[in-house]
Amino acid sequence: MPSFTVYKGTKEGKIVSAQTTREVGANEVLVKITHSGLCGTDLHYKTAGIALGHEGAGIVAELGAAVTSFQKGDSVGWGYQHNSCLACKKCLTGHETLCAKRAMYGYADFDQASMGTYAVWSANFLFAIPASIDRKFAAPLMCGGATVFSALQSSGCKPTDRVGVIGVGGLGHLAIQFAAKMGCEIVVFSGTESKKDEAMRLGASEFYAVKGKETLDIGRGIDHLLVTTSAQPDWKLYLSVLNSAAVIYPLSVASDDFVMPYMPIIEKELRIQGSLVAARQVHRDMLTFAAHHKIQPMIEEFEMSEEGIEQAIAKLESGGMRYRGVLVVKE
Amino acid sequence: MPSFTVYKGTKEGKIVSAQTTREVGANEVLVKITHSGLCGTDLHYKTAGIALGHEGAGIVAELGAAVTSFQKGDSVGWGYQHNSCLACKKCLTGHETLCAKRAMYGYADFDQASMGTYAVWSANFLFAIPASIDRKFAAPLMCGGATVFSALQSSGCKPTDRVGVIGVGGLGHLAIQFAAKMGCEIVVFSGTESKKDEAMRLGASEFYAVKGKETLDIGRGIDHLLVTTSAQPDWKLYLSVLNSAAVIYPLSVASDDFVMPYMPIIEKELRIQGSLVAARQVHRDMLTFAAHHKIQPMIEEFEMSEEGIEQAIAKLESGGMRYRGVLVVKE
Repeated sequence: MPSFTVYKGTKEGKIVSAQTTREVGANEVLVKITHSGLCGTDLHYKTAGIALGHEGAGIVAELGAAVTSFQKGDSVGWGYQHNSCLACKKCLTGHETLCAKRAMYGYADFDQASMGTYAVWSANFLFAIPASIDRKFAAPLMCGGATVFSALQSSGCKPTDRVGVIGVGGLGHLAIQFAAKMGCEIVVFSGTESKKDEAMRLGASEFYAVKGKETLDIGRGIDHLLVTTSAQPDWKLYLSVLNSAAVIYPLSVASDDFVMPYMPIIEKELRIQGSLVAARQVHRDMLTFAAHHKIQPMIEEFEMSEEGIEQAIAKLESGGMRYRGVLVVKE
Repeated sequence: MPSFTVYKGTKEGKIVSAQTTREVGANEVLVKITHSGLCGTDLHYKTAGIALGHEGAGIVAELGAAVTSFQKGDSVGWGYQHNSCLACKKCLTGHETLCAKRAMYGYADFDQASMGTYAVWSANFLFAIPASIDRKFAAPLMCGGATVFSALQSSGCKPTDRVGVIGVGGLGHLAIQFAAKMGCEIVVFSGTESKKDEAMRLGASEFYAVKGKETLDIGRGIDHLLVTTSAQPDWKLYLSVLNSAAVIYPLSVASDDFVMPYMPIIEKELRIQGSLVAARQVHRDMLTFAAHHKIQPMIEEFEMSEEGIEQAIAKLESGGMRYRGVLVVKE
């Protein structure tokens, strides 16, 4: 029975390692982890005492007896909350991320987190990583990439639409790349001008520094607005630049209420669309699309260790990450 | 040049009549009004000093030189904010209710309100009333019917879905009928049991009195939730009975903020969908569907006069209307 290390948070916010063992079931795969992305959501769980990480990439090390979809040595990745039942209405209609039986952050039993040395996953919820994508770049696609791609794909975003992206960070810098390759005009909103050049290089068509602004003048309006900042934006500012029938995607985790002026929702027939990572086929499409268009997260590397994870978390919390931290297992 | 009477509100909230004249343009139609519905939205305008009413039904009295789509004597109706440009992107893609040039409540110049003796409308924005629908029943369909039908039609509501309706009133009692005829299960939420029998007769499958309730137990969840009450509901109560990927339609006019717990929007991938009357083809489909299924508003009749309108408004404001007031022009 494989025995391996995972990294978990503690009540005090320190990262500690723990040992766990886990049988590899008939339909499961043991993955030797090589990389894990660090997602903003991990910060919400760092004091919860559970193993962390849900942007995994690694190599198939062992196969359950019934697994035929992978081979030893394959590059695979996995994401967030994919332990769906595969038998309910949602699962049967391509919306398995909404399955009531899925684990919201299912790593309490330590064996599926991506910060560690190994993980055991059902073969049904592992994704083959295209050969042209390095695993260090694949890891941040497993949640960050899937989240922005799924939002853009699931609500009828067309190549002729204008897409607004609030925030240039882990999600935002991927949203710009994906939407640009889908053919959209990309209007980026950021606090200051500091990320302007990078945003334009990533594919933005326009960039607006909004700090202190009370009105926005962006010419033609926006059809889709991805909110990737952890704080909710000043809706009054953005409502004025939305086209009628625009779709708003709040993509971050937040504990407060969602508060927006009421009448513009009605008068403009706005759509506020909750969106949560990607269903498996959408996730596969995301990887294929990223490979075809050479979409690549900008990453900073840290060592997969207590210290490395703490350093990565500190940098993310300081706002200094450009743009996704990746924990790397030493060979 | 036709001269006619309209009824308008005043700063003090009284209803007064006024005379107006209006040339009938080449593409316009003079309609002799026979009926007007009274909509909750009218209450918001009763002190604005503009002519009231946007649920019109009447008879074509005079045709502009270029009009070929109607004949004298035809039964026609009209609704809310249909003065779109017919040339912009929204208009050209079947979303003319979202046209930036449309008049939101376009009766300031007195000639298009439905509370009066005549109205002049562009032939493009008049609807033929099916022969089997009495004009007194057609009038409330022009806004109330169009509003609930459009919400149900525009966001992928399927006959196999469970539809929740909050509030049994002008909109709610029509929503129940339309959704039932679309094949859906209808779950009705109302303050008390007082409207239960009527709701069930109209097509509801289940009825829940929610006053004082802190939790709801309705068995299987809801896929679409139409909010037809003028006050915003206790979202915490309803979020618990929504299925993942459910669509919420706030249909009333309100001046406060839209406030909802944030995380359920994300975790359940909820969709909050602003919805505003119906585009013209949807409106036509609504009338055809209503005729085919004999969908009929329950109405209370009042005289089309200062006194009659004031009586109807008072009844609507008291909460006693069952369920739509209709002003009737005396022959």
